[in-house]
Amino acid sequence: MKLLEDKILNVGRVLGDDILKVDSFLNHMIDTDLMMAMGEDFYQHFKDKPINKILTLEVSGIAVAFGAAQYFKVPVLFAKKIESLTLGKDVYTSEVISYTKNKRYNINVAKNFLTEDDHVLIIDDFLAKGEALKGMFDLCQQAGATVEGVGIAIEKVFQGGGQKYRDQGYDVYSQAMIERFENGQVIFIGE
Amino acid sequence: MKLLEDKILNVGRVLGDDILKVDSFLNHMIDTDLMMAMGEDFYQHFKDKPINKILTLEVSGIAVAFGAAQYFKVPVLFAKKIESLTLGKDVYTSEVISYTKNKRYNINVAKNFLTEDDHVLIIDDFLAKGEALKGMFDLCQQAGATVEGVGIAIEKVFQGGGQKYRDQGYDVYSQAMIERFENGQVIFIGE
Repeated sequence: MKLLEDKILNVGRVLGDDILKVDSFLNHMIDTDLMMAMGEDFYQHFKDKPINKILTLEVSGIAVAFGAAQYFKVPVLFAKKIESLTLGKDVYTSEVISYTKNKRYNINVAKNFLTEDDHVLIIDDFLAKGEALKGMFDLCQQAGATVEGVGIAIEKVFQGGGQKYRDQGYDVYSQAMIERFENGQVIFIGE
Repeated sequence: MKLLEDKILNVGRVLGDDILKVDSFLNHMIDTDLMMAMGEDFYQHFKDKPINKILTLEVSGIAVAFGAAQYFKVPVLFAKKIESLTLGKDVYTSEVISYTKNKRYNINVAKNFLTEDDHVLIIDDFLAKGEALKGMFDLCQQAGATVEGVGIAIEKVFQGGGQKYRDQGYDVYSQAMIERFENGQVIFIGE
């Protein structure tokens, strides 16, 4: 998606070998017009699927999912990373390893909000090694929900997470697919 | 705001003496159409102020702020609760006590995203004792930014946080103002 790729090239910053910082429009400041345009783009890609719910992961997935939800006209469900006193115990839970944050944590959804009747579009801001995605697939599997597709804003293709799910036959659609970083520059697939 | 009050009456749940659970449309599932309607309502209230940025706090403030940002046509900046490897050290930070979660944590914004040129609308999902709000005011003060107003989805008026800021002359606008809980029922101000 050119709009997102241009934004990444203009204001994204590469840190070290594998971190892309997009704090100015996605992970700290949010450009909601861009999120809406991305939401419409997800809708164009997945509109023929019987999607009735969008599943994402707090924190930065929420804004991306919000834009999509406005086009699909379905609710967003965000998995929670932190055990909360108000979440209750009746949850599905899955362990996720975060390489960026260098820790393990559990992600949780309340059982009454994800069921076998759900046809889910999973949305997230980044796809790298696929750890968060694995956790969200796991939550859907526990609930008996059907995963209709995966919509990602930025995929770091070289970290392999997307290919794993494409190999299993899932439609993983990423709006910006980064082949590699080179001298602090972002190189998209096909450039 | 009647739409939000009705939603609270229909699907909100009162837990104990002072917790209102709105997981089905705000804190776990998100009803984005409702967030957009709330955003328009915030806009109608604050549209004459020279607001150029919306400041909120992860996690649940983000969806509320997103709806407002679509009407104000300004970016959202969300303060981060968790120290992140990718946030960097050049941040303003303030300590917040969460009574719901029974802990203290720091909230942070990057210095380059909040400056003395900013005219800020602070938005959050809940206002109780005003702890999170105090932290966001503190961040604005450190940055030299001007707080133009405070927009809250749900205020638990009996916990006193809103009055503190109104007494200081701030425009604190809450869309649903809860006077008290009575036998597990929500009683709004003026009922």
